[in-house]
Amino acid sequence: MKVTIRGRSKHFRTVTFDPRVNAVRLIDQRLLPHRFRVVSMGDYRQTARAIRDMVVRGAGAIGATAAFGLAQGARGFRGNDPVRFRRHVDLVYRELASARPTAIDPIHAMEQVRVRMRAGRSVLERQALAMAAATAFAEEDVAHCEAIGCHGAPLIREGMRILTHCNAGWLAFVDMGSATAPLYAAQQQGRKFHVFCDETRPRCQGASLTAWELRQQGIAHEVVADNAAGHLMQRGEIDLVIVGSDRVVGRTGEMANKIGTYTKAVLAHRHRIPFYVAIPLSTIDWRLDSGRSIPIEERAEEEVLGAWGVDARGRRRYVRIADPGSHARNPGFDVTPPDLITGLITPAGIFSATDLWRCREALGYSPRRTGQ
Amino acid sequence: MKVTIRGRSKHFRTVTFDPRVNAVRLIDQRLLPHRFRVVSMGDYRQTARAIRDMVVRGAGAIGATAAFGLAQGARGFRGNDPVRFRRHVDLVYRELASARPTAIDPIHAMEQVRVRMRAGRSVLERQALAMAAATAFAEEDVAHCEAIGCHGAPLIREGMRILTHCNAGWLAFVDMGSATAPLYAAQQQGRKFHVFCDETRPRCQGASLTAWELRQQGIAHEVVADNAAGHLMQRGEIDLVIVGSDRVVGRTGEMANKIGTYTKAVLAHRHRIPFYVAIPLSTIDWRLDSGRSIPIEERAEEEVLGAWGVDARGRRRYVRIADPGSHARNPGFDVTPPDLITGLITPAGIFSATDLWRCREALGYSPRRTGQ
Repeated sequence: MKVTIRGRSKHFRTVTFDPRVNAVRLIDQRLLPHRFRVVSMGDYRQTARAIRDMVVRGAGAIGATAAFGLAQGARGFRGNDPVRFRRHVDLVYRELASARPTAIDPIHAMEQVRVRMRAGRSVLERQALAMAAATAFAEEDVAHCEAIGCHGAPLIREGMRILTHCNAGWLAFVDMGSATAPLYAAQQQGRKFHVFCDETRPRCQGASLTAWELRQQGIAHEVVADNAAGHLMQRGEIDLVIVGSDRVVGRTGEMANKIGTYTKAVLAHRHRIPFYVAIPLSTIDWRLDSGRSIPIEERAEEEVLGAWGVDARGRRRYVRIADPGSHARNPGFDVTPPDLITGLITPAGIFSATDLWRCREALGYSPRRTGQ
Repeated sequence: MKVTIRGRSKHFRTVTFDPRVNAVRLIDQRLLPHRFRVVSMGDYRQTARAIRDMVVRGAGAIGATAAFGLAQGARGFRGNDPVRFRRHVDLVYRELASARPTAIDPIHAMEQVRVRMRAGRSVLERQALAMAAATAFAEEDVAHCEAIGCHGAPLIREGMRILTHCNAGWLAFVDMGSATAPLYAAQQQGRKFHVFCDETRPRCQGASLTAWELRQQGIAHEVVADNAAGHLMQRGEIDLVIVGSDRVVGRTGEMANKIGTYTKAVLAHRHRIPFYVAIPLSTIDWRLDSGRSIPIEERAEEEVLGAWGVDARGRRRYVRIADPGSHARNPGFDVTPPDLITGLITPAGIFSATDLWRCREALGYSPRRTGQ
């Protein structure tokens, strides 16, 4: 998407690959929204570290980074012994997989690359296939987000006021994003609207990343405390809610997303405001029987007890807000039941959350590959 | 309530008066939860400044501070000319009233003092009556909170997990608090329970003040992000919600409180969790026809765009969290309808929010004094 640096607009993707120097290039998301910088990872170890250190975050984005990292590692191999090459690729795979052990997207992405590589008859051919497969993975991510945008854009009518939670924007994918794709598509179609970004405590991805994205695209928006949405809905100031998701249970239509999403769904339901979830098909988990089986990560209490930001001099700092002797609970995600979801915006169209299992063929379910 | 300083427990009130040196003594709430300090205001101008600068906050606490400030100002008058004395008292009144122009409590409190002073036949008598009236006002505030505790304590059963929002604790009154009074009373009766303190963005009074209060009293508690309550309720981890209120509409039972309260009421209703509002009778406004008439203050956007806390060296700092070019909406309060309120815990007993008007006599309504 478009980023304006010193008055000049330029198009960026979250993750790209430069084959001439065999480097993975990433927007350093740890510096956003206060500084914009693209960093270059010269070998797969650096790429793995970038995933580990949160230089890059978001399901689609870390998937593409891992896919490129695997191709980068494969291409870094010198020689043509196929056995030693395979051992080297396994090493690269493990290094990248262990960078974010709870995430499933790097695994799925690297599996795709590995499967495609097998068709090569020489080390050189396999290196080329790895490169092609990683590039295809990233392009597919973009195409999926664009399709979400196509299907979702008609929901965004002129003058609407839309609430979003956390960041399921282009920074979380290769481009376009999931929850933001309908917004960007509607903007391209010439419509004007206003977005409220939930700040999304404790990590504040809404206030920092989503607000940054929308400003770069010139979309009117305001940050609100997570506490404010109920009041705004009550006063008729929100017409639509769109969020992303970390996992949708294909059998039940339950949906896990950043903590606070469920609350917004309950509020939207009370006020009869449409509540949509935008996802690529890879987010649907066909194996689980129930949303109760989705593990809810308990994160470090420091996130709740304080906040990260920049001080008056632009230095990044953590400040402690809470009582110094008190502790915190910090569940990272919550689960929204299907009856609170108006629809799932997917690259294959908009589906009812209660209807996913019936529509599973259209949604990419295959009885042999239930794990996507 | 009890405060432990360097291992020694001592009893404090939020506001006291020292007649020997004619000083109003206040807990400096700007320093909490990181430092505990009692400051002494030597004349009424200093007392007014303390109200203005938020050394003291909370309806009951600023009411008592203004009452003591008026008595302090009256006692500071030298001479016995009744005309000059009245002019001086008017000046003191205006100075204290203008310190927090939107608050109604200092006005009500000072009116009580002024009315009682009129019975005095000399300057000296009036000075003594002012002192007695201010002391009575503060004692009444304590008695009301204790009565709220008496009526509310039976709701707190052994092992319960209770959610509270913002700070309606003893720091917001002279002692005991409103929403916290049932907790403190239940603790005195020997029951053990666990409190979840909503951090209450953007100003985080829950994470800072309520958590501090509960730790000082040795009540088990954890701070949670405002986003977490929905998840905790869904998993059956919250049994009861108690909040305070800034204004209850006597005719309709609608209730204004810190932004985010309405959201918690909606969630509690969905999960059939009792939702109680603890208030002194002075919080009931018999004049308004509807909650729509309650003005909702839009506060400075900086509150949402960043946070105040202390850095690693213990220095108080503001950090900017949000995208540097983005703006925020910051409504300070919201209104909860009576059908979401299980009951109002008042010094006169527990009342149904839909029943207030019918019970108005018991709740201190007088047709001649509709403005409390």
